Amino acid sequence: MTARTETDFMGEIHVPENVYWGAQTQRAFENFNIGDETMPIPVIRAFGYLKKAAALVNGSFGLLPDDKVRIIAQVCDEIIKGDLDGHFPLKVWQTGSGTQTNMNVNEVIAGRARKLSGQKLHPNDDVNKSQSSNDAFPTAMHMAAYDLLVTTTMPALKALYRELAQKSREWEAIVKIGRTHFMDAVPLTLGQEFSGYAAMVEQDIRVLTDHLPLLARLAIGGTVLGTGLNSPEGFDVKMTKMLAKFTGHPFVPAPNKFAVLAAHDDLVACHGALKTVAVSLMKIANDIRMLGSGPRCGIGELQLPANEPGSSIMPGKVNPTQAEALTMVCAQVMGNDTTLSVAGASGHFELNVFKPVIIYNFLQSARLLGNAADSFTRNCIRGLLPNQKTIQAHLENSLMLVTALAPEFGYDKAAVIAKKAHAQGITLEQAACDLGYLTKDEFRQLVDPSAMTRPFNIDK
Amino acid sequence: MTARTETDFMGEIHVPENVYWGAQTQRAFENFNIGDETMPIPVIRAFGYLKKAAALVNGSFGLLPDDKVRIIAQVCDEIIKGDLDGHFPLKVWQTGSGTQTNMNVNEVIAGRARKLSGQKLHPNDDVNKSQSSNDAFPTAMHMAAYDLLVTTTMPALKALYRELAQKSREWEAIVKIGRTHFMDAVPLTLGQEFSGYAAMVEQDIRVLTDHLPLLARLAIGGTVLGTGLNSPEGFDVKMTKMLAKFTGHPFVPAPNKFAVLAAHDDLVACHGALKTVAVSLMKIANDIRMLGSGPRCGIGELQLPANEPGSSIMPGKVNPTQAEALTMVCAQVMGNDTTLSVAGASGHFELNVFKPVIIYNFLQSARLLGNAADSFTRNCIRGLLPNQKTIQAHLENSLMLVTALAPEFGYDKAAVIAKKAHAQGITLEQAACDLGYLTKDEFRQLVDPSAMTRPFNIDK
Amino acid sequence: MTARTETDFMGEIHVPENVYWGAQTQRAFENFNIGDETMPIPVIRAFGYLKKAAALVNGSFGLLPDDKVRIIAQVCDEIIKGDLDGHFPLKVWQTGSGTQTNMNVNEVIAGRARKLSGQKLHPNDDVNKSQSSNDAFPTAMHMAAYDLLVTTTMPALKALYRELAQKSREWEAIVKIGRTHFMDAVPLTLGQEFSGYAAMVEQDIRVLTDHLPLLARLAIGGTVLGTGLNSPEGFDVKMTKMLAKFTGHPFVPAPNKFAVLAAHDDLVACHGALKTVAVSLMKIANDIRMLGSGPRCGIGELQLPANEPGSSIMPGKVNPTQAEALTMVCAQVMGNDTTLSVAGASGHFELNVFKPVIIYNFLQSARLLGNAADSFTRNCIRGLLPNQKTIQAHLENSLMLVTALAPEFGYDKAAVIAKKAHAQGITLEQAACDLGYLTKDEFRQLVDPSAMTRPFNIDK
Amino acid sequence: MTARTETDFMGEIHVPENVYWGAQTQRAFENFNIGDETMPIPVIRAFGYLKKAAALVNGSFGLLPDDKVRIIAQVCDEIIKGDLDGHFPLKVWQTGSGTQTNMNVNEVIAGRARKLSGQKLHPNDDVNKSQSSNDAFPTAMHMAAYDLLVTTTMPALKALYRELAQKSREWEAIVKIGRTHFMDAVPLTLGQEFSGYAAMVEQDIRVLTDHLPLLARLAIGGTVLGTGLNSPEGFDVKMTKMLAKFTGHPFVPAPNKFAVLAAHDDLVACHGALKTVAVSLMKIANDIRMLGSGPRCGIGELQLPANEPGSSIMPGKVNPTQAEALTMVCAQVMGNDTTLSVAGASGHFELNVFKPVIIYNFLQSARLLGNAADSFTRNCIRGLLPNQKTIQAHLENSLMLVTALAPEFGYDKAAVIAKKAHAQGITLEQAACDLGYLTKDEFRQLVDPSAMTRPFNIDK
Repeated sequence: MTARTETDFMGEIHVPENVYWGAQTQRAFENFNIGDETMPIPVIRAFGYLKKAAALVNGSFGLLPDDKVRIIAQVCDEIIKGDLDGHFPLKVWQTGSGTQTNMNVNEVIAGRARKLSGQKLHPNDDVNKSQSSNDAFPTAMHMAAYDLLVTTTMPALKALYRELAQKSREWEAIVKIGRTHFMDAVPLTLGQEFSGYAAMVEQDIRVLTDHLPLLARLAIGGTVLGTGLNSPEGFDVKMTKMLAKFTGHPFVPAPNKFAVLAAHDDLVACHGALKTVAVSLMKIANDIRMLGSGPRCGIGELQLPANEPGSSIMPGKVNPTQAEALTMVCAQVMGNDTTLSVAGASGHFELNVFKPVIIYNFLQSARLLGNAADSFTRNCIRGLLPNQKTIQAHLENSLMLVTALAPEFGYDKAAVIAKKAHAQGITLEQAACDLGYLTKDEFRQLVDPSAMTRPFNIDK
Repeated sequence: MTARTETDFMGEIHVPENVYWGAQTQRAFENFNIGDETMPIPVIRAFGYLKKAAALVNGSFGLLPDDKVRIIAQVCDEIIKGDLDGHFPLKVWQTGSGTQTNMNVNEVIAGRARKLSGQKLHPNDDVNKSQSSNDAFPTAMHMAAYDLLVTTTMPALKALYRELAQKSREWEAIVKIGRTHFMDAVPLTLGQEFSGYAAMVEQDIRVLTDHLPLLARLAIGGTVLGTGLNSPEGFDVKMTKMLAKFTGHPFVPAPNKFAVLAAHDDLVACHGALKTVAVSLMKIANDIRMLGSGPRCGIGELQLPANEPGSSIMPGKVNPTQAEALTMVCAQVMGNDTTLSVAGASGHFELNVFKPVIIYNFLQSARLLGNAADSFTRNCIRGLLPNQKTIQAHLENSLMLVTALAPEFGYDKAAVIAKKAHAQGITLEQAACDLGYLTKDEFRQLVDPSAMTRPFNIDK
Repeated sequence: MTARTETDFMGEIHVPENVYWGAQTQRAFENFNIGDETMPIPVIRAFGYLKKAAALVNGSFGLLPDDKVRIIAQVCDEIIKGDLDGHFPLKVWQTGSGTQTNMNVNEVIAGRARKLSGQKLHPNDDVNKSQSSNDAFPTAMHMAAYDLLVTTTMPALKALYRELAQKSREWEAIVKIGRTHFMDAVPLTLGQEFSGYAAMVEQDIRVLTDHLPLLARLAIGGTVLGTGLNSPEGFDVKMTKMLAKFTGHPFVPAPNKFAVLAAHDDLVACHGALKTVAVSLMKIANDIRMLGSGPRCGIGELQLPANEPGSSIMPGKVNPTQAEALTMVCAQVMGNDTTLSVAGASGHFELNVFKPVIIYNFLQSARLLGNAADSFTRNCIRGLLPNQKTIQAHLENSLMLVTALAPEFGYDKAAVIAKKAHAQGITLEQAACDLGYLTKDEFRQLVDPSAMTRPFNIDK
Repeated sequence: MTARTETDFMGEIHVPENVYWGAQTQRAFENFNIGDETMPIPVIRAFGYLKKAAALVNGSFGLLPDDKVRIIAQVCDEIIKGDLDGHFPLKVWQTGSGTQTNMNVNEVIAGRARKLSGQKLHPNDDVNKSQSSNDAFPTAMHMAAYDLLVTTTMPALKALYRELAQKSREWEAIVKIGRTHFMDAVPLTLGQEFSGYAAMVEQDIRVLTDHLPLLARLAIGGTVLGTGLNSPEGFDVKMTKMLAKFTGHPFVPAPNKFAVLAAHDDLVACHGALKTVAVSLMKIANDIRMLGSGPRCGIGELQLPANEPGSSIMPGKVNPTQAEALTMVCAQVMGNDTTLSVAGASGHFELNVFKPVIIYNFLQSARLLGNAADSFTRNCIRGLLPNQKTIQAHLENSLMLVTALAPEFGYDKAAVIAKKAHAQGITLEQAACDLGYLTKDEFRQLVDPSAMTRPFNIDK
């Protein structure tokens, strides 16, 4: 591989011929050979929009000549389309400000521009004009996070909600035994059980939505520290308007630029909402695999779709694999939340320098939750079937139907019936009659599982 | 200590004479000898309101005679006042539904009522009428959490915000060096620096406020599972109205009762907001102790109030102890958040049985953040003083003032000046003149620290 | 309450008449009104040993006159016995070095000594002689942690191990169905299942034991920073010998004093082992509650002891409450681990100032795990009974017994049998015969659940 | 892309022509379109060794004909070399047992074997013979984890230790001011300061080493559940011997196979040690960036190597970027630890089904810590230089040198000197003389910074 010589204020360095990046990217590439997690592409794409908007706005302020504006915009369109993805080799584990990725973008734009048009752009003086990594990188963080949430995470959660709500409607007449403490309790309908899941996901969506405005606030215009040094007055307003136009997202200037460079409470808070999604989905997926357990020695009230062979040694085995993939994702997101807390709390003075690890984890959580919720909805929830026979058998067996007798006979007498039935392995009816508390007819009138639930409409 | 014999459906048990509790409390007391964290008093107090309201509402439905209603209400007033605190000995580490604490309350009310009036109340049939631990305990959880947030946590955060904002106003003219990557950067005002802190706290308050409606939704009326079994239609509406009247908090029925028994995403999400507060305050407290470091070998731009001797061996030492207490609290809250995630995600079917650990951690976080923010505000922030001499010396020394030359000379030439000044230990002015780039007068005109910040008004 | 006036280098302050503490404790008491978590008593007790040993060792170096040595030792004995517990009012949330608690101890010893003998001791110059909070507090941390682990946590884990191993022996002949992915699998014995639990706990004990030497290394002798300033050469060796004699624990001087003041990796690492215990016990407790689920609509292979009524509304209900208390403890310990990570990582330069929060969480975890394991062993594991009827029924039903046919017929044919049996709701035998693969007799010979497990001896 | 039709017990499915995998891999590929984290290559490589050993051992038991043994071994060598990496497309987010990756390996071996030799191998009956995913996958987990630790993580930590120890030796004569509570304290040597860092890393290595035997225990031979069903007696011993020979690692059979399938406490415990490494390195990296802060407005006692330009807007800025990359890695590892806790605690019955997320996080932590420690050592620690002028100036300025007077004058008088010097901005000497406590000569004799530290030898 042939190399060219590039220069920055540290001196000369060799850069491969076939890449558009320059000296600073090359130094970072060599100095940070850590892991294989490269800066997520959504961040690079957001930078594409950002650099294009900056060129146009700088032009509108008379700070950049038209030909430079034009060529920058042209290269940015290539970045946005993904044509230059191979030119962003830097790892997440670089400088904590993301400066190296910002310079990677600046250098690639300059390098590609020269290739396209022969025009000489300075990565700092031209492409980075009126910007600092300090405001550009957090702007790209928010843009990437916002976009992924509204295009991937939230649509998947909404589809999951709809499917759960649909199941709740379909199954509103199926009375089944409820379980508290993992023990038999009183009846509810399968529709009610799923209405609870639907309500959890609906609330998750609502809470996430409430956090979106935090992410819509962009740091751009703050340049270094948040003072706006070396950027024209009003740069933030023009930039966010243009970025909103480009992306369709309601971006606005962050009201206090100092705060959004020095800390990432926006992303920390919003990831707290993602973590709550993980907490919800962990519970729902666990319930569903447990309700589907068996087929013959478990709870067996639901039948999960059989998507693939489950065992390399047990022929014919089918497992709740979608629930497993989803719960693994939830465990990951809970851990990512700890990472964000530590990273968010560890900033000093005017700049939090845990930016790359913050956005890497945020985007991973948002993407994984979206993808896994989508997979779970399509490959598991949609195909769920109730095992009516098992449901009915469980319903009739539960000793806790005795609760229906408590208002009439008092808690203590009712307990005596249940204890007797349990000890002797007989039905509640039998126990109640044996004790002489009431006749079979009276028992059947008072203990009616269907009457122990109330009509419930998820759409109400 | 003499004992009496009490009975429940498990049989007889001895209970000390001098306590109001009964058989179930005693069993729990003996069976769960774990740690010394007792159920937090705010939960007991919330139960006082809850049981009083339940008696009154049951009365209004004709389900409980007037004399029972009256005596229950009377005992509940004692519980609310804290007169019976010694009668709630159960630990956090009990049954995961909080049933034992609910029964503790039921039994104490029955026991105290008999003592006061000779009246026989049944803990389950009378005091617990129309309720289950399944809905009563989560109701008390939300009531206690809501109340602590609005009476302790948020007022303290608001006072901290006001003090930070006040400092921002007072110090808006003090130009100082900014720091990024913990390294010298360009100037900003001390007022701007503190405006960032104020903005962070303001946003924390806003995010917390956004979560309050989740906690205002009460589970009461769901009884067991959420079906409302054995409670009258409309019980939830009457109960939340009365609880709202008693407490002044805008309580309403939870829209889906199944979800709020089976999961505690409300508290998990809201604690995510508390954790974000911790993340913010950790950063702010760190900055302040670092800015106050020294007095002679540190950064030394702020002087912290000297509240107490700092060392048992170094005479005259004074330390940033309030920042230390606060950051320890923040570490605790971050850990509590992990506990809530694990506990929230680990529920099964119709009941999450990690309720006591969830509310214990939530209340600890809310109280500690409130108390520590209050202590930090009064004992540290309020008394902060700028060390103007140090601030000025730092400001004049920073090599990054060279940034003001970049728009004129380009990034590369400006870098040469800074590198030369650094290498030779001379001023930027000297370096720039030595390089022949500009005269001293030109330098002073272009490099004006005050001009490198923009007027900023936190109240705008 | 009458007050006396005390003085330190900050000036005068009023202290209540009836307490032994002095000016510095009083300042801390007033300045840190945060939460209600006071410094754990095991830390105070460790200080009792430490101050006594220091007096004696200082005496042996000729640095403290005999009468002062004697009276200090006398008061320390009272502290060790717990007689002065009411004189240590300071919160966990104080200065991060624990200096205030160290001074609290110094002042109480001085105050109590004057009361007992009229002798005037200086809290710093006499009681704290040859020490600094910097080395004294971490010494007390390690002593308290070590002691609690070996007197509470580990004995409880060992008892749990013994009980699990005993169950494994008792049940080695009970063949039951195994479950993977929460789905029916092939057989194992109940004894083998419990041998796995026993092996997990045994390893936990071993890993904890491996960490004890880290805690046995004491910081004493490092005084401030670790340099040993103002303490005699050899102080560390004499001190640790005496502390070992007092407590019976194998304490030795920390080999590098700088490290053990500046960081608490010892406690962080050891808490990692406690967290692993929590991870193990969470799994075991979950399994046991699930195996005991029912009694009629669950898995129901174990019967858990019925210790107390389980529900305030459902008469006769019994719940796996010990498993619930234990799993709540596990969730707490996992969160505490996050707190320790954050606190351990956040030290600066020569002193980590998160000491109180670190020891508070460590001791809470150690105590809770010990107490909860003890409660779980005595109130749950010991009384477990197998439901042989259910176990047998499940065993015979499992479709995965087909695995025994795979070596003979190949995976694919065996899968066909299982699928047919599942689809038609018939037995494997029936399906295999219907498919003409083998006769009933051949089937019974090949598919023998007992033969599908191997003899296993936990004591081997 | 042309496709062929493959079949498993679920039916037919199309698989691309140009890949070696079969039906089960294809199903998993289609059903789990989640994220882009594929199963880590070290796991695939471990499977290469495992399947080769299994073929040979099966052959030695007469269970597999020689030609099949030979061709399996041949393909496995290709897998080990990495030649077939493109044929393992499955994500981490698949079935929680890793069955799909195990089948992916089995199918690729069968597919590649047919291509190479025309020989027909059955993925389950031949390649997977005497194994189950239940034991094969955890075996590969341990093998991959062990190998990465001893080839990447630990060598990097050892090199870091050596470099820190070397600095400690070089700088043993440089007396500097120490800092506690981020405030000026008494002197120590720069060598002592670095000896503390070295001691922390040394202990980290020791603790990690102590955990290695846990990982050396392999599950192989347990097949499904741990019973060893369908594998020959002694399979585990032969397998681990061969794997030890192949890899040079001291692998042995896990003593209790039930435990190592049902739980992953080994990896959880060992990751606790990795997390402790992260906690140590976070502290060390923070100290170093803070000691290097400035260059003119910070602490400035160290000069860090200038590896690359630090700012896109501030010319000439150099930042502690290696410390930043390392601390981001530490934040990641702390979060991964939470993920492992949740995943490890969430297993049910005979199989923990969070295996892929556990190994993914473990390997990420091990690799990142290793790579980042290596980068930090080479690009930062090695090039550190003390700023002797600043160190000396700080040393002379610290008011806490007064501590040297405490043994002579008592704590209270010494405090008066320090307070006076601080208040009036004068030297301690001046203050002491002004107060008439001692003469300049006496002062200089008593207050000698060098004498306040003790000779210390890291190699002792």
